[in-house]
Parts: sequence; structure tokens; C-alpha cells
Amino acid sequence: MFQILSLKNGLDNVSGFFSGSINVGLRTKPNDDGSFDGDVAFIRSEVSCDIVARFTTNTFQAAPIKHFLKYPASFKTDFILINAKNANAMTGAKGIEDIDTLFSSLKEKVSLTNPIMSSTGVIGYRLPLDKITYAFDKFDFNSQNGEQTARAIMTTDSFKKEICFKVTMDDGSSFHIAAIAKGAGMINPAMATMLCFITTDAIIPRDDMEELLGVATEQSFNRISVDGDTSTNDSVFLMANGASGNYNKEAFKEALNKITFELAMMILRDGEGATKVVAFEVNGAASIEDAKKASMCLSNSLLVKTALFGEDPNWGRIASTIGASGIDCDEDKLTIHYDDLLIYSRNENSIIDIDWEEKAYKIMKQDSFKIICNIGLGTSSYTSYGCDLSYEYVKINAEYRS
Amino acid sequence: MFQILSLKNGLDNVSGFFSGSINVGLRTKPNDDGSFDGDVAFIRSEVSCDIVARFTTNTFQAAPIKHFLKYPASFKTDFILINAKNANAMTGAKGIEDIDTLFSSLKEKVSLTNPIMSSTGVIGYRLPLDKITYAFDKFDFNSQNGEQTARAIMTTDSFKKEICFKVTMDDGSSFHIAAIAKGAGMINPAMATMLCFITTDAIIPRDDMEELLGVATEQSFNRISVDGDTSTNDSVFLMANGASGNYNKEAFKEALNKITFELAMMILRDGEGATKVVAFEVNGAASIEDAKKASMCLSNSLLVKTALFGEDPNWGRIASTIGASGIDCDEDKLTIHYDDLLIYSRNENSIIDIDWEEKAYKIMKQDSFKIICNIGLGTSSYTSYGCDLSYEYVKINAEYRS
Repeated sequence: MFQILSLKNGLDNVSGFFSGSINVGLRTKPNDDGSFDGDVAFIRSEVSCDIVARFTTNTFQAAPIKHFLKYPASFKTDFILINAKNANAMTGAKGIEDIDTLFSSLKEKVSLTNPIMSSTGVIGYRLPLDKITYAFDKFDFNSQNGEQTARAIMTTDSFKKEICFKVTMDDGSSFHIAAIAKGAGMINPAMATMLCFITTDAIIPRDDMEELLGVATEQSFNRISVDGDTSTNDSVFLMANGASGNYNKEAFKEALNKITFELAMMILRDGEGATKVVAFEVNGAASIEDAKKASMCLSNSLLVKTALFGEDPNWGRIASTIGASGIDCDEDKLTIHYDDLLIYSRNENSIIDIDWEEKAYKIMKQDSFKIICNIGLGTSSYTSYGCDLSYEYVKINAEYRS
Repeated sequence: MFQILSLKNGLDNVSGFFSGSINVGLRTKPNDDGSFDGDVAFIRSEVSCDIVARFTTNTFQAAPIKHFLKYPASFKTDFILINAKNANAMTGAKGIEDIDTLFSSLKEKVSLTNPIMSSTGVIGYRLPLDKITYAFDKFDFNSQNGEQTARAIMTTDSFKKEICFKVTMDDGSSFHIAAIAKGAGMINPAMATMLCFITTDAIIPRDDMEELLGVATEQSFNRISVDGDTSTNDSVFLMANGASGNYNKEAFKEALNKITFELAMMILRDGEGATKVVAFEVNGAASIEDAKKASMCLSNSLLVKTALFGEDPNWGRIASTIGASGIDCDEDKLTIHYDDLLIYSRNENSIIDIDWEEKAYKIMKQDSFKIICNIGLGTSSYTSYGCDLSYEYVKINAEYRS
């Protein structure tokens, strides 16, 4: 058995990792208090780490992803350079050369083993090398400034996203796992969207890293949708330096799932203009593919999202979206619940509360709730998570860049 | 050869057809001038007509569609009953029985051969039979009130949609083809969305009707997107009574294509909250499937739609959407134009105008323009049409129903 304890100060708890950031003028808007968050940041490990990653499915992967993929399989690294405000995407071979140019300068300041880069921001512009190089003189490579680093990767995010867990086994041995993430839109092309950096001092076998990051990503970042678009830069990295000397697979799996799920919910809660988070639980589908398809169609539907914003218990839009998803379904077998409240059923033994509409309004006023659709044709289930679509979403996305 | 001439007063020009509407209290909001549009309407033919139709691909087809499909293949009809404000969808077997009940009453007032019904409005409520039956006493079944009928089928539409063409062949013989449509959202589940009623007095073979309505729908209503959702009620009907005694296949085809395309553009222009209409032309794709997929992804992307509203020439969102569409593509071969202006190319012989951004702003300020993406991998093309996403869209869809 094991215990999972939440700690403050995210990345800083993990032995052997350093991080920090500075503002070199890529981010030109100050915070409300007049301060500026960083725009160039790093995460460094004292020793070379195993690293595994999950990247966007967009065919036009950004230059930093292509640069990463040029390393041999199972390479080790000790450095991630990160920048905001420029995605280094659609920049061709030059975009990759620019990264190598940066690392040539950087290695005059600090030792580097297979350094990697991660970028977020606007698509289609070359990196401003002079500005980023300037950061290298200013970095304290031995600083532990996880919070500053979490702030430096924000774009349209309205709050920083950092988490750390200390995992303690029954024999008293322990390890840490921590992460920072950005994203306020699962996937927003022009904003380079979701990035997540996870560090751990557990001594985890590389095969487990691959397996467990896949599981964790599938049940978290792959199940949320703010706008249904997929960016050029989406990346999730897991770095393990083994510094604690300790490991337990079940414990690590649970802690990693918890971290990625909580970050995913933070990203959704921070969804551009979102006022509520909704779980779309599809049960009783004929196949897992059907359950997933229906659930994802619901979390992506504009009409469902605007009805959520309007707090209108218009279940017709839910039903119609399921019908439009192309899955096996039958209006005589479908049931729809909002939390525990039955809203739609054709079964004569089912009782729809006479005050269902009033009760549904109350449920929809919550900042999170469940919409549960039982297809009534099988045993497969899938849950995805979405948010509402507000005026603010349109404002943020119509005005972004200018 | 032939001439196509546009006529006023839509449906009323077509020999042998009658139409009209009245308000029976389903529509409770008055027009700006205090008048009320109708909410129950009819289109009647003096003689039984051939009729062909195209319906929604939504699995949960509304009751009127199921009722239509119960007739034997190639049936003839002389009556369409239409109502707004209630979709008669997700109403099960009762929804179909309600239609038969209405026709039992109606046949006491007027002779009926295989009457059909078409509904638009909110999903999930039984039809108010008493109110609709009341209309039967009030209808003048010999009236020719196409404009009133066009207004009676509106829901969130801000203007009526009617068209009529007179087609004259070189020998002086002629026929008419006319249509009314509703839709302000290609496909808006809770609004029962797009309906189109086309009448003609051409003496057209039934096989041609099937073939030509398929062609016309494919190049018009199937290529527009306001919000990417598919409703339970979408229907396009073509009725031909042969009253003119004249026909020419090429002429009919051109006139029908023109009618459906113009109605599709009207629907898009009236897209909920839309301020501009954009053609997404994808050329040079490896296959027609790829061209269509990329084009439809562009016209459905929230990020593209909000950038259009913001008049932001952020081509990164165009490129990223193509990359996310899953088609064969290569960032070194892709080019992007806004109208005639080259915005993106990696080809060293291409010249991107130094003032491209300023020129692109001007193009985007127009109320319609083209975004042309050449994939550079083949010869296949497809064009779809979309609109921008504004605050108004969110307002309309958050507030609809209440």
C-alpha cells in the first residue's frame, strides 16, 4: 500500500531538478499588478534523465517536436528549453536549424546532453533568436523556481497550473512526481495550446514510463475538449532522473493518473471563456467506439455548448447530437439524465418528474455536473469532459494575436 | 439553348400550386411592426405531383420524415402541411400517429392524396393538435400566398428565402421552378434547421427528379456549414405537377442548381450571427475525399470562424486546421491564398507581398471572400462555404427556447 500527499511548490520538490524563467520581451503585456511573467524558461536535471513524450496528432508538427523526434529512440536528456508567444510551427527546416543554433549558444553557459525544446504561441513566425539567446546570460541554472516556470508557459491561461505529489510506500520509502501545464483550450492551433511537463525522482523503468504515460494521457488530456481543434504543438513530457532511488508501479500509476486528470480538469476549468465543466458519460453503447464517438460529439457540439452557457435544459440538443454522431442508437431505448435527474425516456415504467425542468435548471447552475446518456444497446461506456461556449470565448479568439 | 429569368413572388408563379399560412398561436413573438407571421402553412397542388426528397442523416429522424418514408416508393402527393416552432422529433410512435390524426381532420376540408408533413422547431414536444386543426378552418386552399408561406416557415431566420425562375427554351416553350427555404444554421438540432420546398410545373420524368435533386443538393446544401451540427428535421422536397407541359433536362438542371445554390448562400448569409460568408476552396489534394475533408474541417473550425469574425489574417489557424484534418499534406508543398493574395508558401520562387498583412485585412473586411488552399499533392478540388462565429451566435443559441 501507499499514501499520496499533495505538496505546494510543484516542480521544486522533485530532487535533482532545477527550473526558472525570465522575460526577454516576447510577452509584452504586464499582469494586473504591473509585473511581467517570464517568456523563456528551462527545466534542467542534474543527471541525464529518461524522457518519454506524447505529441499532437496534427500532421504539421511544430519544429520543436520534429527536433525531438530526430534523437535516437530511448535517448536521455538533461535540459528542456521552453518559450511562450511563438510556436515555431510552419517554419520548415529553418525552424529546426534555429533550435540547434540556440543550443550552440546555450552550451557555452551550461552542460547539455541531448537538449530539447518546447514552444507555444503564434504559428508561422521564426523564433527571435537574439531575444531568446539573451535569456541564457540571465538564467540561474541552479534555481528552483517551479512557480515562475509554470507562469512563464501561460498564454491565454488565466491561472498557473502546477501540482506535486509525494508518494510514500508502507516501508517509508518515497518519491515525488510533479507537473506544470498550460492550456486554456484543449487544443487551439494559433496558441500552440497544451503543454505539460512532468518530472519525477522515482527510479522508474523506461518501459513503465511509456506504458503509464500512455494510460494517463488517454484518461485525461485526450478526454477534454474546449473547441475540438488540434494544435501543431501539443506535447506531454515525462522526465525521470531516479534521484530518490525508490519506485512502486501501482503507486506511480495512481499518482500519475491523478496528476494528469487534475491538470486536465484545470485546463478545462480555464477553458477560454468557460463558466462550467460538464462530464458527458455515455453508457450502454453497442461498442466502446460508439460510446467514445457519442461522448466526444457531445463535448464538441456548438449547440450543446451554447445551451450549457444559457443554462437551458434543452435535452433535444443532446438527443440530436447523439443521433448525428452516426452510432447505433434508437430513440425508444435512449435515456438521458442530468446528474441523478431523469430527463428523457420512452420507457413506460420510467417516471419523468413533473418539475423536471425547474430541477434541471438548478443542476445546470452548478459549475460542474454530469450529463448521462444510456444508449440501451450494450455495455460499453466512455466519459469525456467539456465546457460551455460563452461570449468570452468568441472575444478571446477573435482578438487573439492583435 | 435556353434562358433563365428571375421572377418575383416565388411559389405563386408555378402553375397549379397553391399555398398559404396563418398564425394559430405557436409563434408568439410579433414582428417589429407588430404583425405576426404564420406558423401553420400548406403547399397544395391541383393534381397529384411526383415528389422526391432528401432528408437529414441524423439517426433520430423526426416523425414527419418517418411518416413520409412509410409511403410506397414513387408515391404521388398533392399536399404538404407545414408547421414552425415544434419539430415533432423524439416523439416516438405517438408523433407519427399525431400526423395521421391531423390528416383525418384535414380531409374533411380538402381532398388529399398521400398528404405529407414537414415540421421545424423545438425537439421533444408533441404537436399541439387543437391549435393546428384550428388552422384547417381558416386556410383558403386556393390562395397563392408564397411570400406568406415563406415567412411562416422562418424560425431564427432574419429574412424570408424565396426564389423563382422562368426557364424559356429556344422554341419559346417555358416552365417555372420556384422554392422557399428556412435555415439560419445549416443544421441546428433544436431548431429543426433547414427545410426547402421546391415546386415546378415542368413535365420532368421521376428519374430525372431523383438524379437532379441529388446533384443540386450535393453542390449546395451539403456544402454549407454554420455550426457543423445535423438536425433531426432537415428536408429538401421537389414537387413536379407537369402543368406547363414543357421540359428540357439541361435547362432544368441548371435552374435547379442555381436555385439551391442561391438558397444555400442565403441560409449562410443569414447564419446565426454571421457577418460574412467565406468560400473554402481546397485544390491540389491527393484525392477528392481529402479535398472535401480539408474543406469541411475549415468551414467547421471554431478557431477559423472566430478569426474570420475578428478579421485577423491569422493563416496559422488555416494551416493548423488542414494539418489536423488527417489528410495527406506537407508544409513544404502547401500554399494559402486569400482571394488572389498569396499568404503562405515555402516555395522559394513564390513572392509573399511585403504588405501582405495589410492587404489581407482589406480582403477580410469584405462580406464575402475566398480562402484557397493548394495542397500541392494531386489534382482534386472541393469547395465548401462557411461563415464567421460572432457574439450574436452565442447569444441566439444560449437564449433560444426561453
